[in-house]
This record gives sequence, structure tokens and C-alpha cells, in this order.
Amino acid sequence: MPIPLEIRDPIHGPIQIDSNEKAVIDSAYVQRLRGIKQTGFAELAFPGATHNRYTHSLGAFHLSARAFDQVFRTFDWKDEKERQKFKYTLRMAALLHDVGHGPLSHTIEQAMPPRKEITGGEGQATHEDYTQAIIGRSSLSKVLAESFWPDLPQAVLSLIKAENEYAEYFKAGKHDLNLFPALSSLISGELDVDRMDYMARDSLYCGTTYGQFDRDWIFSNLLHQQVDGNVYLALDSRALYAVEDFLLSRYHMYLIVYLHHKSVVYDEMLFQFLKSDDQNTRIPSDLEEYLKVDDYWLRSHLTASNNLWAKRIIEQKPYQMLLEVKSDQTEDAKHYADELEAKLKSEKIPYFRSSSTGLLSKYNAKDKTPRFPIYMIYRDPRFTSGFHPGVHYEPLSEATELFDRYKKNRIIDRIYADT
Amino acid sequence: MPIPLEIRDPIHGPIQIDSNEKAVIDSAYVQRLRGIKQTGFAELAFPGATHNRYTHSLGAFHLSARAFDQVFRTFDWKDEKERQKFKYTLRMAALLHDVGHGPLSHTIEQAMPPRKEITGGEGQATHEDYTQAIIGRSSLSKVLAESFWPDLPQAVLSLIKAENEYAEYFKAGKHDLNLFPALSSLISGELDVDRMDYMARDSLYCGTTYGQFDRDWIFSNLLHQQVDGNVYLALDSRALYAVEDFLLSRYHMYLIVYLHHKSVVYDEMLFQFLKSDDQNTRIPSDLEEYLKVDDYWLRSHLTASNNLWAKRIIEQKPYQMLLEVKSDQTEDAKHYADELEAKLKSEKIPYFRSSSTGLLSKYNAKDKTPRFPIYMIYRDPRFTSGFHPGVHYEPLSEATELFDRYKKNRIIDRIYADT
Amino acid sequence: MPIPLEIRDPIHGPIQIDSNEKAVIDSAYVQRLRGIKQTGFAELAFPGATHNRYTHSLGAFHLSARAFDQVFRTFDWKDEKERQKFKYTLRMAALLHDVGHGPLSHTIEQAMPPRKEITGGEGQATHEDYTQAIIGRSSLSKVLAESFWPDLPQAVLSLIKAENEYAEYFKAGKHDLNLFPALSSLISGELDVDRMDYMARDSLYCGTTYGQFDRDWIFSNLLHQQVDGNVYLALDSRALYAVEDFLLSRYHMYLIVYLHHKSVVYDEMLFQFLKSDDQNTRIPSDLEEYLKVDDYWLRSHLTASNNLWAKRIIEQKPYQMLLEVKSDQTEDAKHYADELEAKLKSEKIPYFRSSSTGLLSKYNAKDKTPRFPIYMIYRDPRFTSGFHPGVHYEPLSEATELFDRYKKNRIIDRIYADT
Amino acid sequence: MPIPLEIRDPIHGPIQIDSNEKAVIDSAYVQRLRGIKQTGFAELAFPGATHNRYTHSLGAFHLSARAFDQVFRTFDWKDEKERQKFKYTLRMAALLHDVGHGPLSHTIEQAMPPRKEITGGEGQATHEDYTQAIIGRSSLSKVLAESFWPDLPQAVLSLIKAENEYAEYFKAGKHDLNLFPALSSLISGELDVDRMDYMARDSLYCGTTYGQFDRDWIFSNLLHQQVDGNVYLALDSRALYAVEDFLLSRYHMYLIVYLHHKSVVYDEMLFQFLKSDDQNTRIPSDLEEYLKVDDYWLRSHLTASNNLWAKRIIEQKPYQMLLEVKSDQTEDAKHYADELEAKLKSEKIPYFRSSSTGLLSKYNAKDKTPRFPIYMIYRDPRFTSGFHPGVHYEPLSEATELFDRYKKNRIIDRIYADT
Repeated sequence: MPIPLEIRDPIHGPIQIDSNEKAVIDSAYVQRLRGIKQTGFAELAFPGATHNRYTHSLGAFHLSARAFDQVFRTFDWKDEKERQKFKYTLRMAALLHDVGHGPLSHTIEQAMPPRKEITGGEGQATHEDYTQAIIGRSSLSKVLAESFWPDLPQAVLSLIKAENEYAEYFKAGKHDLNLFPALSSLISGELDVDRMDYMARDSLYCGTTYGQFDRDWIFSNLLHQQVDGNVYLALDSRALYAVEDFLLSRYHMYLIVYLHHKSVVYDEMLFQFLKSDDQNTRIPSDLEEYLKVDDYWLRSHLTASNNLWAKRIIEQKPYQMLLEVKSDQTEDAKHYADELEAKLKSEKIPYFRSSSTGLLSKYNAKDKTPRFPIYMIYRDPRFTSGFHPGVHYEPLSEATELFDRYKKNRIIDRIYADT
Repeated sequence: MPIPLEIRDPIHGPIQIDSNEKAVIDSAYVQRLRGIKQTGFAELAFPGATHNRYTHSLGAFHLSARAFDQVFRTFDWKDEKERQKFKYTLRMAALLHDVGHGPLSHTIEQAMPPRKEITGGEGQATHEDYTQAIIGRSSLSKVLAESFWPDLPQAVLSLIKAENEYAEYFKAGKHDLNLFPALSSLISGELDVDRMDYMARDSLYCGTTYGQFDRDWIFSNLLHQQVDGNVYLALDSRALYAVEDFLLSRYHMYLIVYLHHKSVVYDEMLFQFLKSDDQNTRIPSDLEEYLKVDDYWLRSHLTASNNLWAKRIIEQKPYQMLLEVKSDQTEDAKHYADELEAKLKSEKIPYFRSSSTGLLSKYNAKDKTPRFPIYMIYRDPRFTSGFHPGVHYEPLSEATELFDRYKKNRIIDRIYADT
Repeated sequence: MPIPLEIRDPIHGPIQIDSNEKAVIDSAYVQRLRGIKQTGFAELAFPGATHNRYTHSLGAFHLSARAFDQVFRTFDWKDEKERQKFKYTLRMAALLHDVGHGPLSHTIEQAMPPRKEITGGEGQATHEDYTQAIIGRSSLSKVLAESFWPDLPQAVLSLIKAENEYAEYFKAGKHDLNLFPALSSLISGELDVDRMDYMARDSLYCGTTYGQFDRDWIFSNLLHQQVDGNVYLALDSRALYAVEDFLLSRYHMYLIVYLHHKSVVYDEMLFQFLKSDDQNTRIPSDLEEYLKVDDYWLRSHLTASNNLWAKRIIEQKPYQMLLEVKSDQTEDAKHYADELEAKLKSEKIPYFRSSSTGLLSKYNAKDKTPRFPIYMIYRDPRFTSGFHPGVHYEPLSEATELFDRYKKNRIIDRIYADT
Repeated sequence: MPIPLEIRDPIHGPIQIDSNEKAVIDSAYVQRLRGIKQTGFAELAFPGATHNRYTHSLGAFHLSARAFDQVFRTFDWKDEKERQKFKYTLRMAALLHDVGHGPLSHTIEQAMPPRKEITGGEGQATHEDYTQAIIGRSSLSKVLAESFWPDLPQAVLSLIKAENEYAEYFKAGKHDLNLFPALSSLISGELDVDRMDYMARDSLYCGTTYGQFDRDWIFSNLLHQQVDGNVYLALDSRALYAVEDFLLSRYHMYLIVYLHHKSVVYDEMLFQFLKSDDQNTRIPSDLEEYLKVDDYWLRSHLTASNNLWAKRIIEQKPYQMLLEVKSDQTEDAKHYADELEAKLKSEKIPYFRSSSTGLLSKYNAKDKTPRFPIYMIYRDPRFTSGFHPGVHYEPLSEATELFDRYKKNRIIDRIYADT
């Protein structure tokens, strides 16, 4: 029996890795993520936040196994082999969900090539296209197929894209149920392993407590719910408050860390740099070349450049923030910021105005309904839904009033200037 | 120079105690609190919650010093002696705020004597009356006066009652400002040291994460604000989210721990016991006798009693909860519970129905306006109020929209029966 | 499928309980342990240490399942049912290892009846005799047999006594191997679940960091080693430093917490009380009566007594410590203490002199060789034993030089007097 | 009154920074440290260890203020201004103790220029020479002099070098005592703020528990001891076990993290690269140029190089470890390694053999006596020295038997080969 490899992690303790998984983790594509900071420029405001997408990916990978074991504890598998197939598929999807991520932040996508060079579609490529291409057709694709089986890469891609392009693969159990909804929700949804890891991790590394939540309680109450041949992610109702607390924790992390005024101004300056430097700092479409594209790569471009925005970033001389106001609150607040903006304009002082939105859940927004509901289950009949007393289960969105309480987003309106 | 005593605490680490304070802490009245569990019957649901009011009182005492140093860092004291006077007064108020607390929970007050035997007023005594009497006229009162100065007990009482009965004492600084509002807010208010300690402590001992909040950040942003000769507790606006998180943490602790269905049913059974046993289990009005009144005392009464409620408590055979529903949510929920109640009634099954309210802040409620506002200060002019842009400071209640989001309380409607 | 019960614990998070286990946990014998503090009088020095033997027993129970899953991950069971049999047996042994413990500390054993009234042997009973009797012939014994199977109580007893009185029961796997050594080491040995729980728990509740150790790393490296038909507990060599750290942590907990001078003097006073009060405070031999014997029971005896030692304990007026010296270190130190003792004697001042020994491991001592060795396994051939290079495994005691470094015990010599 | 800046830190919470200190922290020299990982190649074994020397420096800076306040709580200052002078001096020394550190690890010093180009001495420069030059004659030197006073840089340098080159500066208090020993011990000694920070920080980021120690207890027992006009760092004897635990924690961190076999092999490969690439990867002697020298700089050299060692490092293809043995333990162990070495040699397989030493304290070694003793003080006469009963104070090295127990170092002998 091979000795399992263990990696120590500040968040999860020892992370166990099977030997077929090791080949994937050791691949250049996954190791590239060591060079990409998880929270980008936030490090300038929270100097402890030096953690990278590699440890985050390992963390999500680790949590996916815990989640899988919980969710499917009572599932009626055909056999152990079938169970292993889905567990490995989920673990690989968790490990690779960010494998195509560019340096620093999403702003870098400004420098990406046309999508047709990566995945064949219209418009400009995003990091998701790189993720798709790397899993689908790079040397990593071969490693995956060899370490597991030929159609694993495609199944992993389906989960990451949250589009079931391979329905046959996801039929499981003695009754041929469709596992895709539950698995997909664990990779990308309100309670996915991505968020569960990054909130805990970012919170620790930033030195804030806001992202801490009751992970153990949520995990030990994870279930699945079968509806019309589909298997959905579900939670026992005793985890209701834990989930509310989780959603609020994430909301606070947005307001405090991810939308911090320093991150915002540096991202804006990077954007200006990329716009004005478009001949030089271009992200290669060749996937082997992309292996070199990380924060070191971007930094060497910035350091070598004479572009003024690049200099400001490297020398840490950002535009100064003159005002931060939550302008949706009152018309007064908006006018207050408008006045300052008018003044800067009239005095010809260069400035930006940025607006960031703190929202409880993107699934709150009208156009972004999640593909797959998560269910709250009232296993213990003593605890019943406050909205639909007596039902056995209901979608999470109907089980809590939190989405209602936080309907109104918080808009953070900021003005930065060259003063 | 005397060697300061240090007591190790799981929450705060080493707690330093001056030698004049040691006499008070070692007094029988303060030591009595070792015998009273902080969260009463919650221990039955959260077995780790064995902590007592003694360590909580030490914790509040410890935090009061930290808070004092922060709040008055820039205050213009007449001299060091004046500063010491107020610091010791605050520390003693924090230490003694619960000194008259009865065994287990507030339910025990059912067994208290008429108030006239304790403090001279109308009606039945509460634990607050005992606190007042102990500080005002017991042997502890003498210890306080001797360890500090004669009018300290009265000043401490004023702070605990949040009624400034001794205006002269609280004038301070080169401009004779009234410190009472700020000090009183630290003992009893939205951000008092009582809450700051019990949330962290209860959270740790119960094994829940919900009561954790960013204490360090709140502390390092504590300030004071002078308005019309009065000095109020204040916070820099950069602690806004930390305070929102703190309020939500407390809300979640209520829903999860303090209003747990096991606590509620045992409290109700204790209430029934005290009602039906009114000849025997009476709390003495004599303060020296009261020294023996703690959880051990109550338990020996319960153990010795043949009362059926006492037996149920000791043998851990509570009424069973049949239903828990948040009946304010919808009429449907209320009807659902009503139906069950009607059924129990018609079948002559003994039952209780209990309603608990989870609310964000008691100051939310109309009739409970806090005496003293806490102010949010916009020291850094870049960060401005979203509601009143440009103001230098405003009351906390106007600086956050949280109270608005949580206007609607959560009512937990439960039915327990003898089944 | 029944809903598993979960109890939140400050140390381990949610502890899962199966429904057959619930009956045992809810029994009066296990619930009695709520009334017995884990660290007895240590609470007087470390006021946070209010935790009881109930949560400790739950913790050991929880860890035993984790340990079992790790140790036997690769064991070749006959079938799942056999695996369950041993897992439940181990869990019950962990849960019940302290079920007969008396109030406060081992000192109470002074008040226990002759052993012949409990288990039939010679001499005075100890708490181990009560444990044996409760598991073997009380109403709990019946609950165990009914919740599991008739011979479980006897098997559990064997494990707790570390004497395999039931060899047939412990034969397991396709090759009929003897599991007793490994299981017994997990209940009582250098790395048992008892220690693993109490060190973490006492450390947290006392507010000291000394008892923290790398539990996760030790657990994920637990193995078993088969030698001559016997299966022993084993560890991968990569956990060597973690085990050394664990042993040192325990040593420090002894020096700092368990042998604290306040615990020692109160224990001595309790001893004096029990000696001088032998008509009244006697522990009943009847097991149903024993259900009432907990800290509350002892305290009510102390409170009701006129015995001077009882009064000192209740009123917290101990003999004062005059000297603490590590007298084994040098002859000088011993003489220094001897001189003080001589002086007290000549002045007729009542005093005690107590000597406590801090030692790294009781298995260090010559007469206490552990029945069953724990093995260090060099699975990865790159890491080899420093003492016997090339061996595949060796006893823990030969794999580390720590026992050698700590051969010399630390003796703490104290003098307390009535001053 | 200016608003103090606060930086959140995962280890210490909010770190407060005064406005004169801000200019130093924001300087390019201090910001350069963001680009240098604290534990170098250890990140490859402990992927969480991405933290840099910037946060470590801030942490040491933060601790130095806490330590100063404790140590000199009872010191008889001439006035508040004098106190401030020493506090700022100490804080700057703590902040800047590593300011000249090169990329990754000490191995980089191989590429440093002759010392005469940096500080004027003989031989090759080390990072200490850069630290000296930066504080003494770079643009940072000017910032320091302007933010504080002209001779602060020189005083800071004295502390960092642990050589009192400026005796007049360090005379303090009403009796003109020499503070240098105590201040120097806080910057560089058995209990310095450097170690106190890095152990806690490395431990957290690596995900190991071994570096945790009872910082709060040590801090609250820090004192000073005056001997012959000199003021030394001292500790109350009640912190004896805390200090022992601290020393053992550090020892374990060495064995587990700092001397991890991956760190060792990469350091060796970097050494080989620097030796064989001496024309290209040279560290500039110009201090303004040195601002660009960080891990990014080194990595871009490695990436651009065709050197085989550089490729191995970048592509993560190290020599494989074939054996790790503690060869000092027995002659057998040494022979075992010798045999393997002989075999590799005869087969002409390229290999390294490396020997690392884990020792409890460098002050253990004969030739490295610390300049300034730290004293253990027996303030409370009840607790007396085990070696010299009755003394009021004694050097730490005589107060504990730990140095004696750990006299024998642990030598880790490893063989790596190109296989």
C-alpha cells in the first residue's frame, strides 16, 4: 500500500493526497498557481495576505472530499468503484477550478487574447477560457486522463462550467440518478468548496475575523435531496443559522477586504496600465507559454516598463482617495460626491470615480439565478419551516429571510485623484 | 513595589490584578460567583458551557481597563491621580456588575423576597436589588471603601444602575466635564464590557463560533466624544463593520445558545417548581445568608425535594418539544402551531407553549431607548457618513442601516408536552 | 435512517453519536460525570477550569473513533460487521474509562469502602473498582448489553483494565489476529485517547498553551504493526517530533497545572478532612447510591460539617505556602527546605511538607513497564532509525532519545504552614 | 492629534504605527522586504509559508513596544521624553533588524560583493553589512534622522550589531544607568522580539503548532535587573516553564521546518547555481540598486539562466533524498550513511551529503557566549532557585536544567542524489 502524501495547511491541517492525485498536483500547471496571490493587491492593505491560489486550490480539493463523504453518506451506490469515480471527479474539479487564473486579479484579463485563440468563441478570453483549455487540451489534460481515465477531463470541465455536457457520466447509483446538480453546487454555488476555503483562508491571512464561520457544523449537516431523478445539494435545517452566518461573513469580507479602497485603486491603475501598454504586456495564447504567466511575470513587465501607471504601481504611489461614501443611501450622499467630482473636473485634477457593490449573494441579483437550487431539509419533524410549515424540504432561498433583509445592496462610491 | 497578581484566563490570557483590587476579588461575595454558571441550563445542550459568573466578571473587569485606556487616551486629566480614580471606579463597576446574581438564571427571581427587604422599594426583588444591596451595605461595601475610598461604592452603584446619582463624583478633567455617559456606556450599553466578555466567553465554552467578533479592532478604535459638557463613548468610523459584525454575532448567539429549546424548557420547569414549592425554596433576604445561595444551594433544594418538577429537572426528564416554529413569519406558521396546541388541549396532554424573541438590540425596541448615545466619529475626513455626508460625528444608530435591516424580530414559538 | 445526534464541543467541534450510543450517554451513570470537575481544585488557581469529566469522556469517545479509523485503515477485516464490533467496543471503553471516578480528585478514595464491597478484592476500593462494578453489574451494564450485545461490557472492562480477560473476543480479521494490544494502547498507554483529550481540554480551559500538541499530525500517522499474531499500535516515523512534542507538553502540564501549589494544598486539606471525619463522609458502596456522589455531594458534606479542615476548604483559607523548591537538584536546596522545616517544628507552627514528582512518562519508571509496546514504523525507507539504521520498525522507547534526556525527574518540594 | 495608523496582522491583531514611524515603514527599503519570503524555500514543503520579511519586521516592531513597556514599567526615567527616546530607538531597531536581508536565504550571500564595497571591512559582505550600510548611509538613514533625531541611526545600528558603540546615548534614568544590555537583549538574544515573532509567525503560516508558546505569560513577566550600573533583561521566576517551553518550541521548529530536507536541498542547489554562475547573478553594491534585489529579482535571474542548477530550481526537479539519518547517535548510523555514499561514489552518481545541526540554543555552544546575560528574578521569596536556594536572581542559564538536558545536539545527516 503506497504511503499517502500529506501536506500541512494552516487552515485544514494535514491534507491527504493519493498517489494518482500527486501527479496532477505536481504538474507545472498546478504549480504555476504558487506564483499567483489569492487576493492580489489586497496585500498592500493587509500585509499578511501573501497566500496564493495554489494553497487555496489544495484547500478546496481537501474540502471537496469531506463534503462528498458527508453529502453521499447514505447514497445507494452501485459499488465502491462508482463512488470512487465521483469522488475523484469532484476532487479534481475542486483542485482545478482556478487553474487558468491570470496574475493578480481579474483586471489582467484586459491583456488576454481573443477568445478564438483559446477556446474558439467570440470576444476576449477570460481566465475561465484558459481553465477550460488547460483541462481540455494541454499536457495537463493528458496527465489527468492517465492518472484517472480518459473522460475525466471532460467531466471535470462540465462541473467547473456548471453545464452538464456529459449527462451519461453523471448518472449514478442503483436508480441511475443524475448527480450533476449536487456535484456542481459543491464546485460553484452558494455553499461551494471554493468559498468555504477562501473565506477561511483570506480571513486568517488578512488578520480579520470576519470570514470565520461554523464550517464544521455546516459540513456535518450536508445532505442530498432527490427530486425527479436529480440529486441536489441539501442541508439539514439545524444548520440554518450557520448558513446565515456564513452568508453574512462573506458579505463582510467583501466590504472589508475584497473591496478595500487600496485594492480598488491599484486595480484601476493596473487597468490603466494595460490599456495604455497594449503592445507589450500581452498574455500569450500558447498554453505552454502561459505556464510562465504569474505575478512574477507581471511584475517583471511592470518593472521594465516606462509607463507612468506601471511606475506608480511599482513605487507604491497610487492616486489618493479623497472620498468614500455609500452613495446609494441617500441622495445627499450622492450629491456630496458629485460636488467633489465637479470641483476636481473644474480644477483639471486627474481623478477616478469608482463604484463597488457589496451584495449578500450574486444569486440575489435577478439575472443570475443559480442553475441548481440547494435544499433545506426538515429531517427532524419538530423543527419546521417558518414560511411553509409542514413541508419536508424547500429551497434555501425560501427557508431564510436573510436574502430579504439584505435585498438592498451597499454601494461604495469612491473618488481618487492625483494630488 | 508589590508583585502584581496575574490570573490566567482562557479568553484574555493573563489578567493583572492590583493589590487593592485583590481584596475585593478574594471577598466571599465575589467568590460566590464561582458557584453560579454563566449560561445556566444551556450546559445541558452545550456541555462545554460550565463556565461561571466569576470568570465572566473577571473578564469584564479586565476589558474595562483596556477600554478605559483607549477611550481616554487623549483626555485632558487634571492629574494622574484623577485618572486612577476613574479607572478604578470603572474596573470595580465591571467586576461587580453581576455580584448579586442568583443561581442559574433569572427565573430564580421568582423565589426572591419582597424588594422592601432588600432595597426598600415596591414589588419583588430582582438580582439587581441584591447587587445594589451588596455593594451598598454589605461587608463588601466596607472592603471597597477601605481598599479605595469612602464614596467609591456609591459611584460604582451609579454606574451599574446607569443612573448618575452622584454628579459631583463624575466631573473630571481640566474643564470639569461629565464622564458619566461614557463610563456608564462601558458598563451597560450596546458595546459594554459585559457583552464583549460574555459573547467571546460563551462562544468558546459552548463550542460555537457565532459569538466571535473583532474585539481588537473595536478596542483600538474606541474614542470619546464631548457634547455640551458631557463625554460620550464613541468609535472611529473605520470600526463600522466591526460593530455591525458584533451586533449580528450577538443576535446569532441569542438564536443559537441563549434561546436554545433545552434552556427554555428547563427554565420553564424551574419556574413551575418555584411556583409550586413556594414554602421551601426561598431566597434569604439576609445578605450574609445570601453568600450560600448559588447553583450548589439550588441543586441541593431540588435534590431534596419531592416536587415533581424538581425530580424532572434532576433526572433530566423534561417535557418533550413537539414543535419549533417562527410563527411571526406567516399566518400559516402560527396556525400550524395553533392546531397542534388545540389537539394537545383536546387530548388533555399537559403542555407549555413558549415564545422567545430574537432581536438585534434591545435599544431597537421603542420603549428602551438607551440613556446615552454612542457616537460614530468620522476622524478621517475621507470616510464620510452615508446618511449625513460631511458630519463630524453622529449617533451609532444613525450611522448604520443594520437596525433597519433587522427591524423585524424573530419570534420562536415552541410547544413542549408531557409525552 | 436515523438522524445522528451531534453535540458541540469546544475542543473537537461537532461530536457525532449513534442512536445505540445515545442510550449509554444519557444514562444516569454517564450523566453523573457532569457533576465532577476534570481538574478538581485546579479551578482555584485557573478559574477557567470548570470543565467536567462528562465532556472529557465525550472527547475521548470522539477521538477513539478517529483513532480507530486511522489505525485500522488497512486492516483486513472479515467483514464490515466485525469492524463495527471493534469500533463500538473501543468507543464504549473510551466513553466509560472514568465512569466510576469519585468527586474532585483521587484523594476522595480515602473515603471509599473496602474493596470487597465493590469488586470483591482486598484493601480499600479505588475509583477503578467503581468503574469496574458499574460496567460489570449496574443498570448501565444492562443498557450496554441491550444497546450492543451481551458480552460487550466484559470486553470493555478488559480494555479499561488493560488485561485481556476475554481473548476470544479480540481475535479479528481474516488471520485471526489479536487486536487487544492496539485497542488497549488507545485506551490506556503513552498515546491514549484519554491523554489526547485531557491535555487539549485542560489546556484550553486553564488558559495555558502548554498542553497543545499536533493532534492532527499524530492522528494521520497512526498505524498498526503486527508481531507474532498480535496487533500493536504504531506510528509512522514522520510523527516522531510530534510525539516528542506531545510528551513534553504533558510534562509541562504536570509542572504547571496538575501539580500547582494550590491544587496540592487543597488536596492535602481534603485528605485531612476525610481522615478526621471518617464517620460522616463515607462513599456508599451501593451503586445506585453512588449516582448521587459528585462534587455537589462532597460540597454539601463540607458545607454541613464543623470540621476545621472542611471550613478551611469552603472558606478558601488554606495553609499558606512558605517555600517551593526543587530539592532533588542539589543538596543545598534540600537543606534550605530542611532548615525551614526545622524552624517551624521548633516554633510549633502546624505545617505540611509535600513532594510532587514531575516525570516525562510513567513508563519511564522501572517498575511500570507498559504491557504493550507502541511501535515506530519506518515506512518510507529514506527516513531511518538513528539507533538501529535499516530496521523496519522498533519500539517507540528506542526510537527517541527523549526518555533519556528526561531520565532525571523533577521533584517539587513544598512547605505549607498555618500562619 | 493625528489618527494613528493601524495595520492588521494575523499574529498580533492591529499594529499601531505613529506618524513619524510611518515614513520609515513606507520607505522603499522597508517595503523591499515585502518581496522576500521569511522562510525561503520552506514554502516548497509548507505551501502556506508565503509570508515575507516585511510582516515579520512589523511584528518584531510591534512586540518591541510591548516588551519595552513591560520591562521598564518601574524604571525611574528622568522624564517622559527620555522614555520616548528609548522606546522609539528600540522600535526602530526591531523594525530594521533585517532591512539588509537578501533574497530567499543566507545562501544568496555567496553572490554578494566584497565587504569593502559595503562597509569597508575584509572578506565577502553578508546581509548584516547591507543592514548596516542601509541604516548608516542610505536615503533611509536620512528619513530616520529627520523623523526622529540625528543620532538615532547610529544608536539603532549599535543595538542591531549588539555592540555599544555609542555609550553616551544609552545612559538613562535618574542614576545614569546603562540600558544597552537590556535593549540589546530584546533585539538579539535568547528572548528577543525577532524570535518571538518569527516562531509564532512561521508556525502559523507553515501550519505547524510547534512554534506556539506562551507569549502573553512571558511578556507579562518581563523585568529588568540592575547590576553594577548596567540594566539587564530579566524575568520573574514564575515564567520559568514558559521560557523552557519557548526554547523547546524553537528547537522543534528547527528540526521540523527550518532544517526540512526540501529547504536543505534547494539551498544547496542555489549554492551550486551561484558558484557556477558567478558572472551573472551578482548582488549590486550600490544601495539604491539593492532596492530591486528581492525574490522577484532572483527568480528572474533563475528563469533567464541556462544554468542547469537554475533549471532544476525553477522546474522543481531537485536531487532526490535517498537517506536521512541522525548520524551522531550511533556509529552504526554513520556507517549506514557512509556505505550508501560509497556506493554512489563507485557508481559515479552525482550526490550531495549534508549535515544540519539542531541545537537548543546557540548560546549553548562554547564559543558563542551571549554578551549580555538574562536574569531570572525570584521576586516572590516563596519560589526559590533549585540550584542556589535563597539567591535573589541568577542568570537564566543557571536557573534551568534544560540546557543541560539538551547538551547533545541532534545532527541530521542526509544524502541527496541525481537519480
